Amino acid sequence: MSTPNPKTKRNKVIRVPERGHYDRNIIYPIVDEALIGHVGFVMDEQPIVIPTLIARDSDYILLHGSEASRMMRHMATGAPVCITVTHTDALILARSAFHHSVNYRSAMLFGTGEKVEEPEEKMRLTALFMEKLIPQRWDDSRIPNEKELKATMIVRVYIEQASAKIRNAGVKDDAEDLGLPYWAGILPIQTVYGPAINDELLPSHIPIPEYVRSYGR
Amino acid sequence: MSTPNPKTKRNKVIRVPERGHYDRNIIYPIVDEALIGHVGFVMDEQPIVIPTLIARDSDYILLHGSEASRMMRHMATGAPVCITVTHTDALILARSAFHHSVNYRSAMLFGTGEKVEEPEEKMRLTALFMEKLIPQRWDDSRIPNEKELKATMIVRVYIEQASAKIRNAGVKDDAEDLGLPYWAGILPIQTVYGPAINDELLPSHIPIPEYVRSYGR
Repeated sequence: MSTPNPKTKRNKVIRVPERGHYDRNIIYPIVDEALIGHVGFVMDEQPIVIPTLIARDSDYILLHGSEASRMMRHMATGAPVCITVTHTDALILARSAFHHSVNYRSAMLFGTGEKVEEPEEKMRLTALFMEKLIPQRWDDSRIPNEKELKATMIVRVYIEQASAKIRNAGVKDDAEDLGLPYWAGILPIQTVYGPAINDELLPSHIPIPEYVRSYGR
Repeated sequence: MSTPNPKTKRNKVIRVPERGHYDRNIIYPIVDEALIGHVGFVMDEQPIVIPTLIARDSDYILLHGSEASRMMRHMATGAPVCITVTHTDALILARSAFHHSVNYRSAMLFGTGEKVEEPEEKMRLTALFMEKLIPQRWDDSRIPNEKELKATMIVRVYIEQASAKIRNAGVKDDAEDLGLPYWAGILPIQTVYGPAINDELLPSHIPIPEYVRSYGR
């Protein structure tokens, strides 16, 4: 069951509206594939955009950072936030300069932040955060002690509204340009992970775990 | 010769200040490697972050889009803008959950936009924009006609201030955790381009150009 996501002035895709999507079942997989989001907020009328690790928990985005972080403290005030994630999937080379394009999947999330104070809930969300970023790692690492948990701020941003924008198509040239002697096509873009490199201080008997070897998003 | 870039409250890196850089010779290569930037601006007190293709021309960031684009029209008003680019280079897996990290290079650029009106200058900047995104493509495609040039808005954002933040290091575990039986190391992240796919309508005698085959950033 997907939470309703009303389309209003704030989240409406204006340019190329047929690329816009408002179904959380389409938006959330785009969010979940991302390691980082670009978090936009306003301080003294100045827009600020900061990249940070993100993880989604139902209709919330979890952010973590230092208790001393300007961004985290600002998020904790409940100020309005826009978190955007983007995957660039291909360059589209058309015969005409004008029709060059990019295949991409992006999601814009609008909401407000709230600091998680309760230690047990912080620990639960810290575990969930890591599980989303690197599945199986939480059980294969030392979990935070009390001091580390205190130094970490967890903010959850309720996703009030969202939209996705997707281009997933080939070359769209004007008919009269199809005979031009220029190459046209798709140049795929991929993110690849690995091969993993052992820490210099790692004892030689500890192998690279399968969840690291096969890591992908 | 690099333009001075004063460090003030706006662009100062607060968290982990030793990761902060203010030299345009360090900041600009991070910008130039990026295809897209995340453009932050404020409308009706709401922060909005939109991904878009970017290209740098000296101390300006060029943005292009439709004359009908909400973002482009807002940029053209000279409203304050923050453009952020981010490269995630590796996941850092420490023995403790707390010391997990990411190697990254990000740049935050603060400035104000200005619409380029003059047709010859628009054509020059459109060529430069494409040359930065796909070197050698401008001379190997049909350049925009008058109608296409009119439909395209070019905004240049003067980079008043900027900062970069870089983490490029290995695992940093606490000494007392080094004997723990968990794997620790670096999982590199790379962006790869290609192999290129011909447009379905491409005549078979047109080969994939070398600048496409060898494309990288």
